[in-house]
This record gives sequence, structure tokens and C-alpha cells, in this order.
Amino acid sequence: MTKINVMDLIKNREFREIHDELKEMNPVDIAELLEDLDEKDRPLVFRMLDKERGAEVFSYMDDEERQELVKSFTDQEITYILDSMYTDDAVDFLEEMPANVVTRLLERVRTDTRRDVNMLLKYPEDSAGSIMTVEYATLKKEMTVGEALDKIRTIGIHSETIYTCYVVENKKLLGLVTAKDLITHERDEKIIDLMLDQFVSIRTTDNREDAAKMFSKYGLIVIPVLDPDDLMVGIVTFDDAIDVLQEETTEDMQKMAAMEFNEESYLKSSVFSQARHRIVWLLILMFSASITGAIITRYEEAFAVIPLLVSFIPMLMDTGGNCGSQSSTLIIRGLAIDELNFSDAFQILWKEFRVAILVGITLALANGLRIYLVYKNLNMAIVVALSLIATIIVAKVVGSMLPLLAKKCKLDPAIMASPIITTVVDTCSIIIYFKIATILFKL
Amino acid sequence: MTKINVMDLIKNREFREIHDELKEMNPVDIAELLEDLDEKDRPLVFRMLDKERGAEVFSYMDDEERQELVKSFTDQEITYILDSMYTDDAVDFLEEMPANVVTRLLERVRTDTRRDVNMLLKYPEDSAGSIMTVEYATLKKEMTVGEALDKIRTIGIHSETIYTCYVVENKKLLGLVTAKDLITHERDEKIIDLMLDQFVSIRTTDNREDAAKMFSKYGLIVIPVLDPDDLMVGIVTFDDAIDVLQEETTEDMQKMAAMEFNEESYLKSSVFSQARHRIVWLLILMFSASITGAIITRYEEAFAVIPLLVSFIPMLMDTGGNCGSQSSTLIIRGLAIDELNFSDAFQILWKEFRVAILVGITLALANGLRIYLVYKNLNMAIVVALSLIATIIVAKVVGSMLPLLAKKCKLDPAIMASPIITTVVDTCSIIIYFKIATILFKL
Repeated sequence: MTKINVMDLIKNREFREIHDELKEMNPVDIAELLEDLDEKDRPLVFRMLDKERGAEVFSYMDDEERQELVKSFTDQEITYILDSMYTDDAVDFLEEMPANVVTRLLERVRTDTRRDVNMLLKYPEDSAGSIMTVEYATLKKEMTVGEALDKIRTIGIHSETIYTCYVVENKKLLGLVTAKDLITHERDEKIIDLMLDQFVSIRTTDNREDAAKMFSKYGLIVIPVLDPDDLMVGIVTFDDAIDVLQEETTEDMQKMAAMEFNEESYLKSSVFSQARHRIVWLLILMFSASITGAIITRYEEAFAVIPLLVSFIPMLMDTGGNCGSQSSTLIIRGLAIDELNFSDAFQILWKEFRVAILVGITLALANGLRIYLVYKNLNMAIVVALSLIATIIVAKVVGSMLPLLAKKCKLDPAIMASPIITTVVDTCSIIIYFKIATILFKL
Repeated sequence: MTKINVMDLIKNREFREIHDELKEMNPVDIAELLEDLDEKDRPLVFRMLDKERGAEVFSYMDDEERQELVKSFTDQEITYILDSMYTDDAVDFLEEMPANVVTRLLERVRTDTRRDVNMLLKYPEDSAGSIMTVEYATLKKEMTVGEALDKIRTIGIHSETIYTCYVVENKKLLGLVTAKDLITHERDEKIIDLMLDQFVSIRTTDNREDAAKMFSKYGLIVIPVLDPDDLMVGIVTFDDAIDVLQEETTEDMQKMAAMEFNEESYLKSSVFSQARHRIVWLLILMFSASITGAIITRYEEAFAVIPLLVSFIPMLMDTGGNCGSQSSTLIIRGLAIDELNFSDAFQILWKEFRVAILVGITLALANGLRIYLVYKNLNMAIVVALSLIATIIVAKVVGSMLPLLAKKCKLDPAIMASPIITTVVDTCSIIIYFKIATILFKL
């Protein structure tokens, strides 16, 4: 049964059928369905879910629709949901709510929920602490496999994952035991004998992107989080890590296209918000590009004598921009996925220089020949060809080095992308072009 | 102990200490260490690992170093490694080897390894079949929880994941049982009673990127793969999905910067290969940009009379390019993460149009005022301001619509990014600019 069919059932108010369909659907799909409904149908359908399932579906919904939906809830209903949600999801939800509502709600939830939520709320938004959850299974090293399994049986259901259990002593993490180990060993074996004491961990203060990368590097489902005193305070799970990686990539791409990062989804954000996130860089780049224009006016006499000179400006500017953008994209992405480091700077410079020579000569020959054939003007062909080679070298060197420099200065390399590179390279290429032209044409 | 310390031990040939250190290290870190060693030390250190661990480390290494390392192996050693690796990793390795070597090796491996490898080798590179693995745990619906646990105990160790078990009948997938269910239920309960019969699955023929997205959407660790006859043939695990998502993003970014996708890592690829992947688009875009140049020559007389006209060309071109690139990036990314669809085209068009008006007026006012103050030339200020508004509208409309159009035509939207948009918008903005100028200056 597809989502569209359920939408039809809702339109026709066939409540019994809707109820039956919802029971068969994945909670993620129900969340998607609810988002597509209009505001008056949403609470209606939501209330057809049993309470526990409702809380799960709620945690999968988008912020905007969730805030809309919650308006129709009683405080009791919200409190139940908050108590049932994983703490990290509850925090995500509360962060979008007005402060006075949060205070009111937190007064009504269970004491342990309030304590956990308050702890998570204090971590900075880009820290590993902000994406961790506090539901996990702990064991003691003196336990037997049987005792451990019995413990998991009682607490397991409330934990986001029980597949890795943590052996702790006074909150200090001694080692890991996987569910696989528990299943495949005899009940009377001791936890301490099968515990892995070499493990990957992260700190609450680590950058959340660095934390997320550990998942793909080590292929882990879950990583324990330690506080600055080395005590275990939570876990991060792979699904949150995937979300972080996706979001960081989107952020990089937006910055690379001269925008400030906009967390809202495109369709839901307002025109005003879209314009605001785009305008600052456009203004900066527009005024920077005026410098190139000012340089051109200095060569007014040159193109007064040879007007054809002007017609190669767009081609030179675009080619320089494209070459620079290729290099900066490769370096920014390489830095983002830890394939490149600042220490590779010299190797990168040398590679880009040689690539620039190869690309430059090819493009110069192709375009030089075209100009010679079309305009029968050998000097012009030479001027354009030489300018192209010089522009491409500048573009590739600047394009590859600026992101590395940004990284070194602890700035986000993503801002040193196509738009800035283009503006810098434009100025250089125009100067090179007119210099070569004035020399060759003896202007 | 850091990698650098181990490197020192290797340099000093302190074999006993190296051996002890390796025992404590994570296999992923050992693989990284091996990649950093020079060719003669690599086999030396590799042979210090016990056989099973060696096979695991081998599966984490990069292709280049692996191919280099394998040259020092006997056929027997390689065969052992192939038999120990997960089938998907073995296939990744074999795909990089010469065909005659593959044939020779496959003759020597176990029959089941050969059968599995041959099956995986026949899936197209971008299909879900190509990233699946065939090691998974199956149960029968008549089993009890106790029997299921006993079965896992014997086969579990060889399976990439035992946390989701598959209940099959004649290879047909009936449902799932999680390890959590097995642990938390009594030994005499029946599998059929706790089996989940609603589950997410993918097809061998699905696109691997679509398959990978299911993991983040549903927060799953593993998804079963069905063949066209609905029979279960393998599983895909979240770590392979993360890799696919990362690789697809890198591919998108490279295409968005006017490059053909280069699978090799930046530092390891040759200068020639780098140049080859960049040159085709540069040539196409360079010749396209010449069109803009040709248009400029048509207005030779205009800028012969008012040379100042030329100096605003770079600013107009860059601003148009940046505006278009902002829109195209938002749309391309939105399509990639399934936030946008072709059906949103009208909504997007309308939003971009309004954003363009807002951004256009702001930039036009800022630059018009600047030009008026600097050059005391009201007409010129008006020409530039009007051209800016028109250019920005064209840029945002073209920038947002071309990726959607590409999607509709089943092309990769990523090619409709900044470079192509810039070239298209350049031509339009130059025509608009000179048209407005000739009218206002009565040229």
C-alpha cells in the first residue's frame, strides 16, 4: 500500500482502513505521510497511532511540521512523548521550541529525562556531545555472560543499541563486550575475560564532524563518548553520524557557492531568508570584481586601438575561473574527507603546476589556432595563447593553495572556493593579458 | 602508541616491539600504517601479523598499496586471504587485478568462495548488487529462540553481522529477527512468533546510491537484498552505504566543478590523469565563452564612444555567475538528498524569481550608488543597475531550472552547475547590458 493510497483513505475519511494501514507501515514512512498532510488532518491521523508508536513517529518528523502538530497536544501528551523519546531526539525537538515552553515541559517530565535533557542541552551545537544519546547498556567486569544477558533482558528494550555493551567501573570505561560475544560464549564465562580493552572513543568536546568520520573509518555502529574527566557519559550511533556527514557536506557545498549556511530546507524557508543567506557574499564579490573593472580602464587606449582585445576578456575570465574552481574543489573535498592535509601542500603545488602546464598548453594551442584561422591575426593568437597559459597556472596555483591556507589558519576551507578564486584570478588574468598585449602590439 | 612511534620502531628494526605494538592496534590503523611504509618494509611488517588479522588488515588497505604488497605474496597466501575476506571485499580486490591473475587465483580458492565471488562480479558497478555481501545468518520459521541462538553460535563468527537474522523458506525471505529479540525472549519461544514480517529491502538491480540512502532514511544497520525473482541473495551493511554516499558526493562535487569523475585519490593519480579528467569540459566551456566575446565585438562602436562600459563587464559576469551558481548548487544538492523533485519545479521557479528580485534590487542600489558617487555619471549608474537586476533574474532562473531539466532528462543534475550556468548567463548578461546601454546612451 503506497502513501498515495493512504492519502486517499484520509480524504475519504475511511478511519478503520487508515488505522489498519498505519499498523503495517514503517514509522519513518508514517512520519513522511504526516508531513504531507494538511494541518487539520495531521493531529487526527497522529492520534490513530498507539502511544508508543506515536512517540517514535514523532521523533522522525521534520521540525516545522512537528512544531505545528504539537500545538494541538496537551502538556500531558507532550510529556509522554518526551519521556519515551531517545534523549538526543528529545533535545533536538526542545531546541526548536520557545524557551518558556521548554521550561514548562521539563517541569513535567520524569526526573531522569529532565537530568539527561539538561545535560545534553549544554553541549555546543557542533560538538560530539550534542549528537550523543545517553541510553546504553553497562556491565560490570565481575559479571558472567549469563548475568550480563539477564541484565540486558531487563534494560535492553530501552536502549538505542544493546549490540555493544560497556564495561564500566565508577563511570570509567574499562572495555567493550559485543552482543555477538555474549551470544557465542557460555553463560558461566566471565565478562572480564571476553572484554575488549582496545577501543575507539570520542570526547564530548570533539567536533561532531570529526566524530562522524570515525564511523566510516572504523566501520563502527556505535562509539562511546567520554567527558573531559575520562568518564563515560554517552554513545553516538551511526545513524546520527550519517546525518552529520550529510549536513556537513551540504554546508560545504553552500559555502563553496558563496552562501552562508542555511539549515532550513529549501522549500520551507522564506524568500527573505533565502535572500539574506545569499546577499552578503554577493555584495563582497561584486565590489571585489569592480577592481578588475578598474584595471581594465587603465588600458582604455589599448582597446581603443585594438577593440578586438575586449572580446577575449569573457573567455579568459571564464577559463581562469573554471580552472581555479577545479583545483579548489579537489583540495576542499580532499581536506573534508581527510585524504589531504596541509603537510601535502608542496606536493599539491607541484602537481597543480604541472597539470596547469599540460592543460594550459592544450587550451592555448586550441584557442590560438582558432583565433589565427578566424581573425588571421597571428599576434592576437599569440597574445591570447600566452595569456591563457599564464592565467591557468595562476588559477591552479591560487585555487589549490587558498583552501590549504584557510585550513592552516583554522578557517573553513570551503569558503576558498570558486567564487573567491574566480575574483582573484580575474584580476590577475586581466593584468597578464593587457601586459602581454601592450608588449606584443607595442601599445 | 602513535603511528609515528611505530614508524620509528620499524626504522630501527626493533621487531619484538613492533610485534607487540601491532597486537594492540586497530586493524584499520595498521592498514593506514602499512600504506605509509615504503615498499620494502610493507611485506616485512605485514608478515608479523597473524594470518587471520592479516586478512582483515588487507581488506582495509587502499588498492594501490594492496596491489604493490600482493606482488610479494605466494599464491597460497593470497588464496588464504581471499577465503578469509568478506566476499564483497574480496571482489573489490579482485576487480583491480589483471584478468589472468584473477582466473588463476579463483582456481585455488574454496568452491563456495569462488561461487560467491563469481556471482558478485557479474553485477554492474553502480548497482546495489555490487556492494552487497553474501555472509549473513538465516533461520527457519519453525525454529525456537534456543535453536536459533545455537545456530548463530556455530555460524555467527563468519558473518559480517548477526544482529539481524533472516527467516527464509526456499530462499524466499519471510521476515527478520533481531539479535535483540533473540536475547530478550525465552529459549522455547518460536521464531515465527517474534519474526517481523514488515521490512525494508532492496533489489540487486537498484542503483547503489538509492540503496545507500535507505540507510540514513530508516536508520538501519543492514538491509536484505532480493534478486529479480524475489529470492534473498545478500545483505548490504551501513559501512558500505556510508562509503557509497561519500563517493557519490565527491563525484557530484567534481562534476559541479567541470571535471569528469576521477576515482583515484588525488595524491596517487598521475599529472596526466588529472589533466585528462579536467580538459574536456575546459575546452567546451572555453569555446562557449567565445560566443560572449563575439557578441561584445558587435558593440565595438558603443565602447569606442564610452570606454567606461567595458570596465563593468567583469563585475556583471562574476555577479551573474555567482547568483546562478548559488541557485544551481541549492537545487543540485536538494535533488541529491531527495529534498527536492522535478514536481517542485514551479514552486522553485517562483521562489527563485522573488529571491532574484530582492537580491537584484539590493545589489543594483549598492552598485548604482557607488558608480554615481565615483564617476558622477547617472546614466551609467542606471545602465549598470538595470543590467544587474536583469542578469540576476536570468541567473537565478537558469541556475535553478537547468538542474531540474537535467533530472527530468535522466541526466546527472550535477553537470548543470556553476561552469555551464556561468557561460549561459554571461552571454545573456552581456546582451542585456549593451542593449540597455545603447538605448539609454542613444548609441
